[in-house]
Amino acid sequence: MNNQPSSVRCGLTIGSILASGVRAARGTEIVTSDGRRMGYQALRERISKLGKALADMGVATGTRVAVLDRDTHRYLEAYFAVPMLGATLMTANIRLSPSQLRYTLEHSESSVVIAAAEFLPLLEQALEGSTLRLRLIVCPDESQHFPSTSMEYAGDYEALLEAAGEFDFPQVDEEAVATHFYTTGTTGLPKGVSYTHRQLVEHTLAVGLALASADDYQSLRVGDVYLPLTPMFHVHAWGMPYIATLLGLKQVYPGRFDAKTLPGLINREGVTYSHCVPTILQMLLDEARLQGVTFSGWKVMVGGSAMVPTLASRALESGIQVFAGYGMSETCPVVCFARADATLAVQAPAELCRVGCPVPLVDLRLWGEGVEQGELVARAPWLTRAYVKNEQGTCQLWEGDYLHTGDVARIDADGAVRIVDRLKDVIKSGGEWISSLDLERMLREHQAVEEAAVIGVPDEKWGECPRAFIKLDGMRTVAEDEVVRELTVMLNEQVRNGVIPKFAVPRSFVIVEEIPKTSVGKIDKKRLRTMVVAVPKPHA
Amino acid sequence: MNNQPSSVRCGLTIGSILASGVRAARGTEIVTSDGRRMGYQALRERISKLGKALADMGVATGTRVAVLDRDTHRYLEAYFAVPMLGATLMTANIRLSPSQLRYTLEHSESSVVIAAAEFLPLLEQALEGSTLRLRLIVCPDESQHFPSTSMEYAGDYEALLEAAGEFDFPQVDEEAVATHFYTTGTTGLPKGVSYTHRQLVEHTLAVGLALASADDYQSLRVGDVYLPLTPMFHVHAWGMPYIATLLGLKQVYPGRFDAKTLPGLINREGVTYSHCVPTILQMLLDEARLQGVTFSGWKVMVGGSAMVPTLASRALESGIQVFAGYGMSETCPVVCFARADATLAVQAPAELCRVGCPVPLVDLRLWGEGVEQGELVARAPWLTRAYVKNEQGTCQLWEGDYLHTGDVARIDADGAVRIVDRLKDVIKSGGEWISSLDLERMLREHQAVEEAAVIGVPDEKWGECPRAFIKLDGMRTVAEDEVVRELTVMLNEQVRNGVIPKFAVPRSFVIVEEIPKTSVGKIDKKRLRTMVVAVPKPHA
Repeated sequence: MNNQPSSVRCGLTIGSILASGVRAARGTEIVTSDGRRMGYQALRERISKLGKALADMGVATGTRVAVLDRDTHRYLEAYFAVPMLGATLMTANIRLSPSQLRYTLEHSESSVVIAAAEFLPLLEQALEGSTLRLRLIVCPDESQHFPSTSMEYAGDYEALLEAAGEFDFPQVDEEAVATHFYTTGTTGLPKGVSYTHRQLVEHTLAVGLALASADDYQSLRVGDVYLPLTPMFHVHAWGMPYIATLLGLKQVYPGRFDAKTLPGLINREGVTYSHCVPTILQMLLDEARLQGVTFSGWKVMVGGSAMVPTLASRALESGIQVFAGYGMSETCPVVCFARADATLAVQAPAELCRVGCPVPLVDLRLWGEGVEQGELVARAPWLTRAYVKNEQGTCQLWEGDYLHTGDVARIDADGAVRIVDRLKDVIKSGGEWISSLDLERMLREHQAVEEAAVIGVPDEKWGECPRAFIKLDGMRTVAEDEVVRELTVMLNEQVRNGVIPKFAVPRSFVIVEEIPKTSVGKIDKKRLRTMVVAVPKPHA
Repeated sequence: MNNQPSSVRCGLTIGSILASGVRAARGTEIVTSDGRRMGYQALRERISKLGKALADMGVATGTRVAVLDRDTHRYLEAYFAVPMLGATLMTANIRLSPSQLRYTLEHSESSVVIAAAEFLPLLEQALEGSTLRLRLIVCPDESQHFPSTSMEYAGDYEALLEAAGEFDFPQVDEEAVATHFYTTGTTGLPKGVSYTHRQLVEHTLAVGLALASADDYQSLRVGDVYLPLTPMFHVHAWGMPYIATLLGLKQVYPGRFDAKTLPGLINREGVTYSHCVPTILQMLLDEARLQGVTFSGWKVMVGGSAMVPTLASRALESGIQVFAGYGMSETCPVVCFARADATLAVQAPAELCRVGCPVPLVDLRLWGEGVEQGELVARAPWLTRAYVKNEQGTCQLWEGDYLHTGDVARIDADGAVRIVDRLKDVIKSGGEWISSLDLERMLREHQAVEEAAVIGVPDEKWGECPRAFIKLDGMRTVAEDEVVRELTVMLNEQVRNGVIPKFAVPRSFVIVEEIPKTSVGKIDKKRLRTMVVAVPKPHA
């Protein structure tokens, strides 16, 4: 029925996000991680020059360009320049062990790496004995210190840009793979996920629309000032730099997260929109309290792991408009977030901690017919289509044509999703599922508890039994034993109130110096399970 | 690099818009054109039943289903059910002449028609002597009166829905043609444009994001109540029903536009978002003044033809947050709109009348190298790819791989577009382009002028010369001649102030009873040019 006209193609490409941002920006600035400022035209020019420098090195369709950096404007430039060449951006995880990092660099077949000077030793260590041939572009650190390297040195980032001339990016297919990175599950080798241009633009538009059309409490709008507080190697900082750029917003890149200077930076630059994991929020709140600083009109999406209502309340008291979001490496990442308003936030902070309602075009449901609680599965245009070079993992991920999140959830009457637990962390006891997250939340309510982690351990009678690991507050005034006794009393009270079943009360409590964490700051339950601990006698 | 998993497809389809709306709606209602209310689940069910009824009639991929109706909830149902079957919705223009309507029904090869009872006589007349075989579904009017028909009667809309059972829509390819309709240019036969599912979803997301992320003055958000004030056959009511549905907003369908009852309906239902042409806005303001009614927090996008600052000011005084939008049948339609806030609106109402900045993913520019003023051309994912079965028209539309709007524009320093005139209406006089729109705006500033239209007529000395057609205000107290004298004085004043060149002052003024309009309410300059008029002597 259509006569297709000549060669016009308006694919959904990363380049179209940047072009839209340049048109939309009204004198707004990018505040760089080294404290300078540039407009969107300058950003566009720097991206063009980075594209030219990379193209001159032979970077083209199919090339994987790895980046190791903090949250810098240079990373933002790579977010655009690499995909706009048709190449794939490999956002390397600087928190991985050298051997894991090596695995991801080799598995992704990266051939160029842009690395901040401070990560050269890590990179050297990772590549020791590897046959991978990487060409290196070094981003200077504040000290302008350049460690020596055994890699092929392609140049200094800023010098390369300075030398580069004008550049017209090639036309790129929207189905080209734009980004690629690795997720470290709790078992096995890191798994690679990837996203096409089209998927990233779809995520940008749909998540952007969901956030923008939400209540003032959490609405992302013209006039907002964006600052990322999750690593940019972590699912493209939740896709938010692409959304902020599309809308031409002012953006502030903090570089290395420094709790001491962040509150000042946020207030000085008038930051109004961020996203982070609960740990970072906690750290910032502690620091702000120390400094006697509060915030105003700062909207923060919290995700990565569960936010507890006490943390939400503390954030609100500090003037932060928090709400939970949900997603994972395999989902680009955002698929839903808690819908809130100022009244609800004050009256029912627990509502802010539900992961909320799906963004447009996302189909979220529980796996299994008519279940009240079950594994959360999803469909959306922007979910990773496969684990890279991992057919078995892909089949498991997409079993039955839905992406399996590995999270157990309930869906409330209002359609909002409530995460119960990780599928593999849920404790199967007495024929029921006990949520380790619920228990951890209850344990953390105790004043002397700084962190709590609960796992299931085999039990003859119940199948599994909960074991709690407790990190005590350094400032506490009560003895360890006394805390454990009080926790048991507290949980037994919950049993009497019918909140949890009798067998949900941990049989054993382990007091630890530190709760082990994964590279992205989540509780490492895999390590907890392998920890050989002297288990004290159960408390009655 | 990807291993594509099994058969998962998450195309951008009309069905995904409805599914998102059903998930997003929080007890919001659709107020039907016959005064009833239904929730989104009920809407979904009715759409499913309409789908079933149509499928039982053999409607499937490729079938064209024409609709002739006012702005009703039934039309909204057809917006979804027809494309969700893989079929194409042909939104027939009820304001066309019977012969034009016949042409569009035949050219589109429509085989089913859903028509409101009141349009059966028009339909009968249009099909007289046609070999086109149409099966007819009749939507009842308030009187439940069914005129007799020579068409094959397939049933009454409501009876068909009542009889239809559950229905699972088939999976539809996002590249299937979802909608198809005709634009009546100023010359030649109506031209058909069409949009795929994917294009409509892209328009929905990008325009939705642009509106949602805008300032409070014009932001579309959760909690907004939508009412269309443009015909639903006119570029799918600017795509707004799809956006409103995606967000799960309350929607109010007014049926036939009745100036007397609209202000009451708008205030009673708490309507906060609409769109209309200047004529309808003017009519509503007149009626509201008569009734002594004002509005509150009602955001209205005005497009279709130029809004003049005096109209914008009047709307603001009535509590309407107006702003101009821009698009056309060929552009799905929205490509840009004026960005405004409450302060700007009061201080510079003229700014509300610029058609503003492009929405994300839209590339708008002036045709020609380095011109200050020129034809506005565009690229965006959702522009019509062709005129249906019209290769020559398509080649002209897409000359040089940009869609040619046929409008002359300037782009201001802030990136906002200002429409100067229709390319074919601009008056080439004395080697310069004179904007007929500018002259019309100036003429309408005179109290005794209700409407003004300016065209160019051949002139030996200047090439072309402006001729003004004036419809006087019925309430005026001055004589025709006196008005013309005053208008000439007024324009000569503008010449002295350097606003317009000397040759821009019309050589002749024609007082008319009515300014002829096209089927969509725009000034019909084609007819003005052919009007044989007794031209009075030029006024000095």
